[in-house]
Amino acid sequence: MAIIERLQQDIEFLRNCSEPCEAGTTRLSYTNEYRKGANYIKKQMEDAGLAVREDSVGNIYGLLEGRDPYAPKIITGSHLDTVRCAGAFDGMAGVVCALEVARMLRDNGERLNHSFEVLGTIEEEGSSFGQVLLGSQFIEGSFGEKELDLVSSNNGKTLRQILTEYSQYESPMPACRRENKIKAFIELHTEQGPILESLGIDIGIVERIVAISWLNITVTGFAGHSGTVPMNNRQDAGIGAFNLIVDTNRFVKENYAESATATIGQIKLSPGSSNCIPSKCSFTVDLRSGEINNIEEITRYIHSQALCIEKQCGVAIDIRIASLKHPIQMDKQIQNLIKQSCNELGYTCKQMNSGAGHDAMIFARRWKTGMIFIPCVRGITHHPEECVTWENMAIGTDVLYKTILHLDK
Amino acid sequence: MAIIERLQQDIEFLRNCSEPCEAGTTRLSYTNEYRKGANYIKKQMEDAGLAVREDSVGNIYGLLEGRDPYAPKIITGSHLDTVRCAGAFDGMAGVVCALEVARMLRDNGERLNHSFEVLGTIEEEGSSFGQVLLGSQFIEGSFGEKELDLVSSNNGKTLRQILTEYSQYESPMPACRRENKIKAFIELHTEQGPILESLGIDIGIVERIVAISWLNITVTGFAGHSGTVPMNNRQDAGIGAFNLIVDTNRFVKENYAESATATIGQIKLSPGSSNCIPSKCSFTVDLRSGEINNIEEITRYIHSQALCIEKQCGVAIDIRIASLKHPIQMDKQIQNLIKQSCNELGYTCKQMNSGAGHDAMIFARRWKTGMIFIPCVRGITHHPEECVTWENMAIGTDVLYKTILHLDK
Repeated sequence: MAIIERLQQDIEFLRNCSEPCEAGTTRLSYTNEYRKGANYIKKQMEDAGLAVREDSVGNIYGLLEGRDPYAPKIITGSHLDTVRCAGAFDGMAGVVCALEVARMLRDNGERLNHSFEVLGTIEEEGSSFGQVLLGSQFIEGSFGEKELDLVSSNNGKTLRQILTEYSQYESPMPACRRENKIKAFIELHTEQGPILESLGIDIGIVERIVAISWLNITVTGFAGHSGTVPMNNRQDAGIGAFNLIVDTNRFVKENYAESATATIGQIKLSPGSSNCIPSKCSFTVDLRSGEINNIEEITRYIHSQALCIEKQCGVAIDIRIASLKHPIQMDKQIQNLIKQSCNELGYTCKQMNSGAGHDAMIFARRWKTGMIFIPCVRGITHHPEECVTWENMAIGTDVLYKTILHLDK
Repeated sequence: MAIIERLQQDIEFLRNCSEPCEAGTTRLSYTNEYRKGANYIKKQMEDAGLAVREDSVGNIYGLLEGRDPYAPKIITGSHLDTVRCAGAFDGMAGVVCALEVARMLRDNGERLNHSFEVLGTIEEEGSSFGQVLLGSQFIEGSFGEKELDLVSSNNGKTLRQILTEYSQYESPMPACRRENKIKAFIELHTEQGPILESLGIDIGIVERIVAISWLNITVTGFAGHSGTVPMNNRQDAGIGAFNLIVDTNRFVKENYAESATATIGQIKLSPGSSNCIPSKCSFTVDLRSGEINNIEEITRYIHSQALCIEKQCGVAIDIRIASLKHPIQMDKQIQNLIKQSCNELGYTCKQMNSGAGHDAMIFARRWKTGMIFIPCVRGITHHPEECVTWENMAIGTDVLYKTILHLDK
């Protein structure tokens, strides 16, 4: 069984490994704080008897040799970077539980057939570069030499320049892993939503990572003085946009309450004066669903509703798909092994989609991949108050341990 | 009759008297461009035979002595400053038509009983200070010595510091005017809205300047990841706000289409990421009506609707009245004289409210005050495309001239 004190000690160290910030943890990739956090985990890996390495972009690994030197590896882990003012579990939980699995293997004198690797990826959150899932894409091979010069941080330095400084005391191995050298990748992660907690379920088994579509919508009207243009003579871009948003929200709630989400997180009115009728309103729509069909249907609704609102409000509405990512299927066999492990251990579980992106969606392009969700208190994430109970951390670790034993067979 | 070429020459000079800007005219108070514009008008005043003065805050005057040296003055004019990238008629029209009236009096050999004064006020728009209607409030007396140190420009200098530089070659007279020295103030102004043009009417006679209420509304919800919180578990501050805005807009259109306006010109979502459910949404509501009752009723509706939305959306809504200005009545006798003048000259006219604030609302606190509106092409204002036809400029001037002759009797 997982030992809570060890999980707690690792999480608390990482929680405090932060640049000064208002609240919570800020540990951005390639900073001094990140180096300190990564070195701490490497030290723990060593203490657990793992062979420690760092790759050329800063992902870290702890290897436990298996009986069969030719067998492909089983890898588990998650990311070590945070957003600004983050909690202590997003990413961290997956690394710390993986580390605990290694300790449990050692404690139990369990020798696997396959080599087992604990992974801590870098720059998953995309806080420092315009890119999310950076570290894992170097491992998977979508990113390589070229991207070291193409990808620049917010302060203008290329990744290659940053790495020269960050990795100066390391002799890193290449990041890209070969197809046939990896048997499976499993990522344990906090759910980052309220579903498991509200249903009182211990473990979420991810079926797929949802499709994500980002729309950029611009409504164009006609500016005017707030006091001099009668209500019925207006072409108010804001009112056009607000109506389209309210209608879209209602449509998704009524028809896709459980199967899709629509979120408006950014909006801008121009000229943006309290005494000026807006001539322009731009906003984003974030659509997610396990089924690409749902996203297509919602997008069609938005288009048809926009036509009505154009007439009603005397505005023009431009709808652009800024990005569309198809859903990523998790491996069926791994899902079944996680389920079997839960059953054997007496924990409740539920198959569900992941509404957030994860390193797992990158690894799934090339390797058998699975995800274990553990409950997240009140669904709060990317926030200092993000919390997972220690009990749930231990349950997740035990399920991960058992799943790896099954996979190893 | 007004001579269009003279009106045109003055307007075109002022249109080109601008700091460099993307389009239109930018002539902010107390700048070199403003000095150039003011000096041009002072020169035209001189050429029209007026005695020119500048007061201690930069308002300029051209005086035509009347027959009776003890009679109070009749003043007409408007402001000479602009917003950024403005048109050439807002404010300017009132100064240039007033100047043309002075020329017409001279051309016609008409000597008034009362002294007649052409006025160009400074800093009406509030582009450089946190204060609109600055120049007129110094004339009216609400502002005085104290405000020279209290009022600071956007670049941090006090008005006194700015004036030291701006007025260095002038020997300005005090700004504040005595109650019994002014008989009446009349301001000619572009309507800044589409009503007169759409009805094909020559002249608007302002009955009152509307009451203005500014509400600051803050909706507080609960942040969450756009992909992980199901639609029915959300406390989306943005959706709460958008619903309240759509409902308010519908209510005002249905019940007060001709008698009130409601405008949402500013809105801000926090944290403001496209993949984050907003935890907070702040927006402004600009309410205007000739009747304070209408504003009170609309405000009550917003409060009651907010209660429903709080329950529906699981958010908290805070409504603050940031400012409430009561309507300002224009003088009945002056309204009648403007009407009589229109009738005599064969122009159509309509009594109406002004939805925008003007220097006239300041002068009306102490003196008999009236406003003449001239049609504004497509209602466009505070925009490079703002336009008044030369014919309407001339009609406005002729009505102003006639009204002043009637007032002088």
